[in-house]
Amino acid sequence: MTDATSRPISRYPVPALDAMPEDIRARILKVQEKSGFIPNVFLMLAYRPDELRAFMAYHDALMDKEGGLTKAEREMIVVAISAANQCQYCVVAHGAILRVRARNPLIADQVAANYRKADITPRQRAMLDFAMKVARQAEAVDEADSAALRGHGFSNDDVWDIAAIAAFFGMSNRLANFASLRPNDEFYALGRS
Amino acid sequence: MTDATSRPISRYPVPALDAMPEDIRARILKVQEKSGFIPNVFLMLAYRPDELRAFMAYHDALMDKEGGLTKAEREMIVVAISAANQCQYCVVAHGAILRVRARNPLIADQVAANYRKADITPRQRAMLDFAMKVARQAEAVDEADSAALRGHGFSNDDVWDIAAIAAFFGMSNRLANFASLRPNDEFYALGRS
Amino acid sequence: MTDATSRPISRYPVPALDAMPEDIRARILKVQEKSGFIPNVFLMLAYRPDELRAFMAYHDALMDKEGGLTKAEREMIVVAISAANQCQYCVVAHGAILRVRARNPLIADQVAANYRKADITPRQRAMLDFAMKVARQAEAVDEADSAALRGHGFSNDDVWDIAAIAAFFGMSNRLANFASLRPNDEFYALGRS
Amino acid sequence: MTDATSRPISRYPVPALDAMPEDIRARILKVQEKSGFIPNVFLMLAYRPDELRAFMAYHDALMDKEGGLTKAEREMIVVAISAANQCQYCVVAHGAILRVRARNPLIADQVAANYRKADITPRQRAMLDFAMKVARQAEAVDEADSAALRGHGFSNDDVWDIAAIAAFFGMSNRLANFASLRPNDEFYALGRS
Amino acid sequence: MTDATSRPISRYPVPALDAMPEDIRARILKVQEKSGFIPNVFLMLAYRPDELRAFMAYHDALMDKEGGLTKAEREMIVVAISAANQCQYCVVAHGAILRVRARNPLIADQVAANYRKADITPRQRAMLDFAMKVARQAEAVDEADSAALRGHGFSNDDVWDIAAIAAFFGMSNRLANFASLRPNDEFYALGRS
Amino acid sequence: MTDATSRPISRYPVPALDAMPEDIRARILKVQEKSGFIPNVFLMLAYRPDELRAFMAYHDALMDKEGGLTKAEREMIVVAISAANQCQYCVVAHGAILRVRARNPLIADQVAANYRKADITPRQRAMLDFAMKVARQAEAVDEADSAALRGHGFSNDDVWDIAAIAAFFGMSNRLANFASLRPNDEFYALGRS
Repeated sequence: MTDATSRPISRYPVPALDAMPEDIRARILKVQEKSGFIPNVFLMLAYRPDELRAFMAYHDALMDKEGGLTKAEREMIVVAISAANQCQYCVVAHGAILRVRARNPLIADQVAANYRKADITPRQRAMLDFAMKVARQAEAVDEADSAALRGHGFSNDDVWDIAAIAAFFGMSNRLANFASLRPNDEFYALGRS
Repeated sequence: MTDATSRPISRYPVPALDAMPEDIRARILKVQEKSGFIPNVFLMLAYRPDELRAFMAYHDALMDKEGGLTKAEREMIVVAISAANQCQYCVVAHGAILRVRARNPLIADQVAANYRKADITPRQRAMLDFAMKVARQAEAVDEADSAALRGHGFSNDDVWDIAAIAAFFGMSNRLANFASLRPNDEFYALGRS
Repeated sequence: MTDATSRPISRYPVPALDAMPEDIRARILKVQEKSGFIPNVFLMLAYRPDELRAFMAYHDALMDKEGGLTKAEREMIVVAISAANQCQYCVVAHGAILRVRARNPLIADQVAANYRKADITPRQRAMLDFAMKVARQAEAVDEADSAALRGHGFSNDDVWDIAAIAAFFGMSNRLANFASLRPNDEFYALGRS
Repeated sequence: MTDATSRPISRYPVPALDAMPEDIRARILKVQEKSGFIPNVFLMLAYRPDELRAFMAYHDALMDKEGGLTKAEREMIVVAISAANQCQYCVVAHGAILRVRARNPLIADQVAANYRKADITPRQRAMLDFAMKVARQAEAVDEADSAALRGHGFSNDDVWDIAAIAAFFGMSNRLANFASLRPNDEFYALGRS
Repeated sequence: MTDATSRPISRYPVPALDAMPEDIRARILKVQEKSGFIPNVFLMLAYRPDELRAFMAYHDALMDKEGGLTKAEREMIVVAISAANQCQYCVVAHGAILRVRARNPLIADQVAANYRKADITPRQRAMLDFAMKVARQAEAVDEADSAALRGHGFSNDDVWDIAAIAAFFGMSNRLANFASLRPNDEFYALGRS
Repeated sequence: MTDATSRPISRYPVPALDAMPEDIRARILKVQEKSGFIPNVFLMLAYRPDELRAFMAYHDALMDKEGGLTKAEREMIVVAISAANQCQYCVVAHGAILRVRARNPLIADQVAANYRKADITPRQRAMLDFAMKVARQAEAVDEADSAALRGHGFSNDDVWDIAAIAAFFGMSNRLANFASLRPNDEFYALGRS
């Protein structure tokens, strides 16, 4: 194996914190204060401030809202989709967040490896099957999929949330893979005890 | 065939213009003034104002910027990716924009059907091959892909643009397919004469 | 984009009209009289007169016959299959014929981009799903598929027609892609107004 | 296993010999005289006389012509393509013809199972790789493929033959699978000693 | 075609019989006595005596046991899986064994080409569909698959056997393809009369 | 999420330790002594003592031998293959072993998510690319693959080891997925500090 420290955060330059626009630096410092470190996705995208702002606004609109999905369930979708898209950053980073949100040290590795065999409810299984269809075969999604999810107690707004999270993180997965975004070492152990 | 007027814009409710937040209504009216009609994607996403704002901010950051790609080339990427993802709205709407931007009535249908056989330059072919790799196999993208594109005269910033457009419209394709977003009738004939 | 006029009709030589066998020249002149131009597929295949004769005989046996499928529906199958096989010539040429036959300027682009979202009847949707199964997974077709189509009012003879059109144009798609057959410029605008 | 005699030739009715049009009956009787039996594909397609005539004309134009490919090589393409398309009739029937034409009792089973491991020359390997590309990914075929084949001594006309055989039998495979065409028992042992 | 005798048994060295460990030589001689020749898989794997011993122990545990599957049915699974995995050695060798076990000269070629069209019972069709799911999409196998098989009269132990045979020969197929293991000429004609 | 304790080890009965054959119980107790717990794969396979014995003999022949691959590298292959095959048990269990063998708490999650982005050497990357080809497309493996690996310093024996590990764990992945084998809770945290 290679020396981890020789691997950069991204294939693109990472701007220094004090060279960033004020609003971006402020948000990043706030995250750092809360988490104890700066998730590398902020540093990679800071190379493109306008895209970072839009990315974060979209992220917050989908992940920080109220609704029929718990925060853990939203992260569960992210982990399942990111594993299917082979996005190392997203599996490792959102796996950590999922463990924390679900207060369950096993769930992220289970979902990443094979969500069909994870300790989840039939309702969550239906949620992930649908998210995977959006990720893999969105051209065939239709009203019958929504009806099946309503049969599990999801509202039409919940269905939109599942689809939008799958679509948004499909973008995120592609960006992170493109730039070879490296997960912070801190994520790996988070939420495991 | 069915009566087109029986097909709704989206599987989700479309808010009335005067029920929309002021900033969104303003943007939509501006587009309507310029184009003569309101592209349905605005009406679909207006159901979720925060997501619409983030979507448009991201769109503008990628499509309205300066750089080594012409506006026609950016739209060419959108059409190729959207055809691969079988997104009817995006192929029809961005096909129209591509015809207009490229002042070429044939190019959009060529790229949508098989971009490898389209009237494009070798540089544009390399651009679309790479965009397709981001859309289909992002997990395998690496520095060798960037090097190949630099060999065609693209800068690293251009490479980011290609990848980001492919990733963003991959999200857009999934959202439009999920909601069964209907292309406006006006798009079909635009830029054909 | 490249200058369209620099792109040849086919990667193979195109014989001059007066060097063609009499029966082939006669058929081509008749098509030209009716359409106002010679569809390039005739010129490409004229390089192989025996194959052109067999191709046209097969084409006419499937597309000019009576039966439970309208001429527009037959063309709808061609467009859906050709889009799946990424055949630029067939999508553009038969898209034009579909618009004309269906007297509908939108239908061809809809079917080519994603037939599942097109303005078609449930019966036509079943027809296209089956045609796609013949194109993609013929090894799994069986009597249950025929039974499902009979449930939509198709006769066993109609089912044969759907399958044979999908199979024949699968061949046509491969030939056109192999030879880089170029669609005539005239097709793009046909039937759009 | 089921009793073989309970399996019909095709899912469609098979016309009696004396109910067939004269030209078709004559051709079939001639084949029967030569082979000792009537290959079932004639009986299946006799349900549609015009299609049978076009099918046979196309078949003969590709398989009975002179050129840089031997008759055994043409059958080798058919067997490789038909195995990839999982066409039981074509693998069994053309496997028999390949054994006879090549005077080699092993070659057909080798090519059907995995042509890359068969006792063939590098030139034949290139021929089959190209035929497979036409069958599986024709949208990406271009002049570079022809150049590679010319490097193995094939002329441009030979390249057309390979592509056309792959395309024609792709159609044939789909038709046979659609109709559940049953191989004659006689084919299995032919050419094995 | 190339001269068959120029093709080695395997891409790896084949040890001489008298250089093999005593237990392996004994087993091989016993097989030779019974079959009249030494199946090449023994000679290939003899390069790795420990692996050969484990391979044969596993093979015998699955193929020589009592249970709800006949020996012919076990071989039918092997042929279907090996055809899907394009393993020339396994299709040819186990095709021969299947013909012998089933006393049916046609069944192996039918199953190899397309098991869905073979002369098998609905119960055997369900068995092969499940084996194929284990080979192709094991991540999605679950209790519902077992229930469906029980509906065809299989016990849970039979279901394990089907799955284990599909998994074990999936390994065998990969090993034989990796080493370019050549089928013995003797297998091709076995059980055909 | 569901209560983990409600999920059984396997969809098949697990025999009690004292009901197992003596040799199997002895081996299991030895593993338990060394690891502190009994990996569930032993308990699942103990349902079939002969298969367990062959499985373990094969495992040891491949994983406990000397050669050009380190023990960590052998586990790296297992993790990469198991992730591609979506085998939850194997990713979690062998991920733990890989962390321990490599004394690296990050490497297993990196390899499981996307080995192309992991902290590995170019030689290890070539090793995993080849293992993946054996897992996914063994029919196309040939001498050129071996030559490429020799260019990275692997011997032909090392190449066999890589292929055999990929093939053996492909079997193991299918068995574990078939039986819904549950990873022991102990594996998740092992080797992380």
